Amino acid sequence: MIQPRVLKGFRDSLPRQELVRQQVIRRLESEFQRYGFVPIDTPVLEYTEVLLGKGGGETDKQIFRFQDNGGREVAMRFDLTVPFARFMAEHRSVLQLPFKRYHISKVWRGENPQKGRYREFYQCDFDIVGADSPFADFEILSMMHSSLHALGLPRLTIRIAHRGLFNDFLRHVGCAELSVDILRIVDKLRKIGSEAVGAQLEELTRSTQKSASILSYISASDNGSMTETIAHLDQLAGFGSVHAKRMNEIALLLEESGISESFVLDPSITRGLDYYTGIVYETFLDDFEEIGSICSGGRYNDLASLYTTERLPGVGSSIGLDRLLSAIEETQGSLFADKGSADVVILNQNGTPLNDALRFARELRKYAIRCDVYLGDKKIAAQFRYAEENNIRYAIMFKDEDKNGTTCTLRELSSRTDWTGLDATEVARRLMQGK
Amino acid sequence: MIQPRVLKGFRDSLPRQELVRQQVIRRLESEFQRYGFVPIDTPVLEYTEVLLGKGGGETDKQIFRFQDNGGREVAMRFDLTVPFARFMAEHRSVLQLPFKRYHISKVWRGENPQKGRYREFYQCDFDIVGADSPFADFEILSMMHSSLHALGLPRLTIRIAHRGLFNDFLRHVGCAELSVDILRIVDKLRKIGSEAVGAQLEELTRSTQKSASILSYISASDNGSMTETIAHLDQLAGFGSVHAKRMNEIALLLEESGISESFVLDPSITRGLDYYTGIVYETFLDDFEEIGSICSGGRYNDLASLYTTERLPGVGSSIGLDRLLSAIEETQGSLFADKGSADVVILNQNGTPLNDALRFARELRKYAIRCDVYLGDKKIAAQFRYAEENNIRYAIMFKDEDKNGTTCTLRELSSRTDWTGLDATEVARRLMQGK
Repeated sequence: MIQPRVLKGFRDSLPRQELVRQQVIRRLESEFQRYGFVPIDTPVLEYTEVLLGKGGGETDKQIFRFQDNGGREVAMRFDLTVPFARFMAEHRSVLQLPFKRYHISKVWRGENPQKGRYREFYQCDFDIVGADSPFADFEILSMMHSSLHALGLPRLTIRIAHRGLFNDFLRHVGCAELSVDILRIVDKLRKIGSEAVGAQLEELTRSTQKSASILSYISASDNGSMTETIAHLDQLAGFGSVHAKRMNEIALLLEESGISESFVLDPSITRGLDYYTGIVYETFLDDFEEIGSICSGGRYNDLASLYTTERLPGVGSSIGLDRLLSAIEETQGSLFADKGSADVVILNQNGTPLNDALRFARELRKYAIRCDVYLGDKKIAAQFRYAEENNIRYAIMFKDEDKNGTTCTLRELSSRTDWTGLDATEVARRLMQGK
Repeated sequence: MIQPRVLKGFRDSLPRQELVRQQVIRRLESEFQRYGFVPIDTPVLEYTEVLLGKGGGETDKQIFRFQDNGGREVAMRFDLTVPFARFMAEHRSVLQLPFKRYHISKVWRGENPQKGRYREFYQCDFDIVGADSPFADFEILSMMHSSLHALGLPRLTIRIAHRGLFNDFLRHVGCAELSVDILRIVDKLRKIGSEAVGAQLEELTRSTQKSASILSYISASDNGSMTETIAHLDQLAGFGSVHAKRMNEIALLLEESGISESFVLDPSITRGLDYYTGIVYETFLDDFEEIGSICSGGRYNDLASLYTTERLPGVGSSIGLDRLLSAIEETQGSLFADKGSADVVILNQNGTPLNDALRFARELRKYAIRCDVYLGDKKIAAQFRYAEENNIRYAIMFKDEDKNGTTCTLRELSSRTDWTGLDATEVARRLMQGK
């Protein structure tokens, strides 16, 4: 006998969770498609070289990699960005730019599992590639906003900054060559606080003044309007930054579209990764700030430089689906309440042949009713437990007065209310009202 | 520079294919849910021992297996049946029986790629576990039938046989101990023809009479009704087989439900695998017989004997999604015609700011219109090509008479018909009529 168990950091998804995940994904996809985004998929396994670059990452413990039976070095994808870059380079000739894609799928990382961290998890990425304009930046922000609203999570704050403007500022104060390290330190602000960040900046820049100046930049906030803050940052950066101009255009588009109250300019947002060059953003749910950003991303200059000489600028974002699902689970009156395994179950009272039940079920299913038929041989009490455990709200029984199985008795299980003598059309009508 | 390429036997899915796949999967899920089936998911990686059994399969070249960074022997799932058996054993205490699950996901096998065979492909499995009755058998057959109808593939034949009845017959003719080899030979009937099968059976049984007898059994067909053929097979098996009785009950349920004309009793169907014990079936599309069975399965006695002592009988089936998709692609007037990346695209005529366009797009999306906005900087001819390549049927332009972007001109691209002066509501109404 083999012990039935899954690997550390891996999970099964039971029906209730899986039904919610499916609904959430459907809702996101429907919203993405309204913005003209299309889905793609890529292989789970790729050449290690394609995912990690030549020679790079040899020691990366976080990647599931191995030699396949043909002796090829292969690895399981650890994100959806690298495969997307490879995809764009490989299929460039048949894709129209700007190309707007989303991709919702699993990725794998051998990280040490912690609470809420798994070795197999979903990512949900969306990007506009081949357009470098404030309008493309705005469309991504707007889609993030609509998507989270569509999930019943309107209480959110999207924090935006601009990496280019920050770099202009660093150049202005004479810290350009330290920008990578500075970004890394600033990124820790939320975790370690401004005092510790200031100390580390002072150590790095060897200047109290520079450290104070950087702290002052990243602490600037929207007390007035977003455009005022941008003007202030532009001033700190020495006036006339093209990036400040871009930020301003985005701010005006947010204003015009009537969604600006969900957006905050927050110059401390940097997104650790090197490759962002324009706006960057993180999204926090006001009621679940502790789970961290649930949707982050930014603008990059060059998506696929590893695979092609064609420059592909873009802007994109990634939803942390597992965090999002845990927030949705805890939301009062979530749109994704457990809808049960079926709308109704036909019980099997007397162990009599189920012929009538199966025919009745076929009728109900024609009305798109999710109709289960109890196919086991347990007594009626166990059948009610079956309905309850599967969160099925209604049961159908055939009583003596229901001749030939053309009419039935419908019971709402929670209230034990019965309706007798209903035919399939009447049952369907009542169930559709109850939904 | 690294060459952007995927591994042999692996494929990207481009938006057009991926949109069709998504729609097909949605349609299947919706049908499965009408039957009270629920989705589950399991990890892509499992302990090798869990997937292959102790010691078993050491030399199996078809499995992607390796040692992870923690020194564990792991493997990528090669089907959805073994993980399901493990899942049932592991979660048995929280699952109500009968348990009806479906699972649509990728699996991996290192087979030599051929036309239509890939190393990464989808499986779509559904099973009823914990019920051993003709009603459960019927529900699976009925769901296969409805699902394929729901996909716009009504011209199909589901060929059924019964492994138990066949074994009764083999016992009756004194060949019981050879049953595994006989099943293997009979399974090749469609490929190598009855003469070759007869010769192999004669060699195996060392008896012309036995070989002839087996050939006669597997060649029996529904010239009359299904119940007549069952009676004939029961006679060949020595009369009174409980399995013939079960088959008869299923045949009557098919008759009563009005779907029996799609079903044929075909005693040559055996399904190679050892673990089937009851009915077995394969499904052929009348217009695409050459692609082979697109939906096969059967009844088994014991799903999870590797992991638990509890006997879990069940009945299930598996749809070959890749074959199905290729059939759908070739179907005239398929339900899943290319619906384009969007319903309408707003063009960017004069390189003027897109503010009006973006506001107009937001309005249209409120009506669930899939509205793209051209975000590039190409000339109008290139924008029309963008629409065409993305199979977008309508375009919106703002002309001089459309002040403030509150009204627009809508063009049907194929006919070049224009409607002028429409506001967002009017555009939405017209597009919804056109769908």
